[in-house]
Amino acid sequence: MSAAPSPGAASPRAADGSPPVVGLVGLGAMGSGMAASLRRAGFAPRVFDVRPGVAEAFARDGGTACASVAELAAGCDVLVSVVVNAAQTEDVLFGSGGAAAALRPGSCVVMCSTVDPNWSIALEARLEAKGLWMLDAPISGGAAKAAAGQMTMMTSGRPEAYARCGGVLDAMAARVYRLGARAGAGSKVKIVNQLLAGVHIAAAAEAMALGLREGVDPAALYEVITNSAGNSWMFENRMAHVLAGDYTPLSAVDIFVKDLGLVLDMARASKFPLPLSSTAHQMFMQASSAGHGREDDSAVIKIFPGIRLPGTGSGDPPGGHGT
Amino acid sequence: MSAAPSPGAASPRAADGSPPVVGLVGLGAMGSGMAASLRRAGFAPRVFDVRPGVAEAFARDGGTACASVAELAAGCDVLVSVVVNAAQTEDVLFGSGGAAAALRPGSCVVMCSTVDPNWSIALEARLEAKGLWMLDAPISGGAAKAAAGQMTMMTSGRPEAYARCGGVLDAMAARVYRLGARAGAGSKVKIVNQLLAGVHIAAAAEAMALGLREGVDPAALYEVITNSAGNSWMFENRMAHVLAGDYTPLSAVDIFVKDLGLVLDMARASKFPLPLSSTAHQMFMQASSAGHGREDDSAVIKIFPGIRLPGTGSGDPPGGHGT
Repeated sequence: MSAAPSPGAASPRAADGSPPVVGLVGLGAMGSGMAASLRRAGFAPRVFDVRPGVAEAFARDGGTACASVAELAAGCDVLVSVVVNAAQTEDVLFGSGGAAAALRPGSCVVMCSTVDPNWSIALEARLEAKGLWMLDAPISGGAAKAAAGQMTMMTSGRPEAYARCGGVLDAMAARVYRLGARAGAGSKVKIVNQLLAGVHIAAAAEAMALGLREGVDPAALYEVITNSAGNSWMFENRMAHVLAGDYTPLSAVDIFVKDLGLVLDMARASKFPLPLSSTAHQMFMQASSAGHGREDDSAVIKIFPGIRLPGTGSGDPPGGHGT
Repeated sequence: MSAAPSPGAASPRAADGSPPVVGLVGLGAMGSGMAASLRRAGFAPRVFDVRPGVAEAFARDGGTACASVAELAAGCDVLVSVVVNAAQTEDVLFGSGGAAAALRPGSCVVMCSTVDPNWSIALEARLEAKGLWMLDAPISGGAAKAAAGQMTMMTSGRPEAYARCGGVLDAMAARVYRLGARAGAGSKVKIVNQLLAGVHIAAAAEAMALGLREGVDPAALYEVITNSAGNSWMFENRMAHVLAGDYTPLSAVDIFVKDLGLVLDMARASKFPLPLSSTAHQMFMQASSAGHGREDDSAVIKIFPGIRLPGTGSGDPPGGHGT
């Protein structure tokens, strides 16, 4: 691929056949890896983060640190927004960030947060009213895959929006699913994935808790289940944390309080029943209310009384009366 | 391995270093494959099935068809019981089958049904009171793996019981997990596996139903989820049935009415809460009551109203009012 143009200069646009100038807002666990993947692919991304010094630290190895979202937006063709939720995206684009006003017409916003699909659909219309394109592009895979350019993007949007992005998406993701010609489909598939991920984590916790209650060796249970029809990606991944007694948050309990809340919000809009999702949501809220909201999401297992968890002194002993 | 002795002759016993004579009761989807695997491994199994002619048809290619469970039991060292549930196992051993009375002291019963672990623990004591060994040995993997000798066994029992079985277990299963020195542990792990399998099937149905409700292309959704963190063994396997609109029962809805019932019974004995299992159990019972009990367990998706299922005319149309 040809070298990216110098950021800040009057940038050639993707429509000219040149790579677009890319800006990325939000250098968190996912965003920092995505920005590094862009840089590795030959883009020199313009970056911004609300935390002082984070953008400057990134730009020491290439790219440009911007002092504000508006400064970043004014100089780029594609703005990748990798913030926590819809409220922060709203602030980046229409609030204090002011990106929607600062972007030149014809630029494209790549919206990577997990949000209510109906909000994403409305966002596309609001951006188009300002002459901007949008890709609905939630991401999946975790920080390690983001850093390696190996994450998954669940995207939808107009052909013109995809065209505007040039090689930007492929530079960040191993798989770019194209799920529809308007915003919304990407977010819907992401929401369904979060439904399954959340229910599977809670189910893994429930199963492991029952095994512990019954005196089954947890390592043996893990070995059997991960080789049987009861396995899930989440059981295999998260129950390793429980076996190790390590609740360092790779993804926190409160993330699933939020994401299963989005699942239920989307379904409520069409009055659709989700018995397992609502039950799992209650379990994560129970864990959060008990003080585990910032622990790893596998800490949802701590809602089960009367068991002793591996690798820690925590958890009630069998019998549950502090003996 | 050396050839198995002729069944019916005064059989050399495993304790002599010779392969045991094996009998297998229940030539259903799993049992017929297991008996065939035994035969392929050099055993000439004695077989019985309650359905007339089934044992005789099997024995045309080797082994011996027995006219009754008692006749089968009188001539074997290891009796593999592959019937539907605890009630049928009870009948084989102590009821009309009378196997416990017919088996020679020192023989071993290999109990392969999915049962309440506490019942299995009690069964071991009842058999030992008659001078018989027992292995708690639930099976997993489906009919195709059983036929190929590639299924999984989740076993526990006394060392003497394992010794009595010689190469019988390995002849039937690719993986023989040894989970404890008494009956119960095998059934407990199997029950935990069924908890996850049942919840995952119901969660897969809930997720696919939500996607359909939201107008997501189901094949695209399947492709994304099976490559994402939301995947489970059951989503990948069972949602292929839903995409094909094929509810031919490989494993029926009513099996999970039974198995999640066993999960809940086991937990209730120690007053342990299982919020997701109880919710999923209600979903399978709803499907069964609606008339889908004998369809493939993926038919639990038919409890969701207001969606049109792929590949069939069934399911309410969007809007749910028969338009």
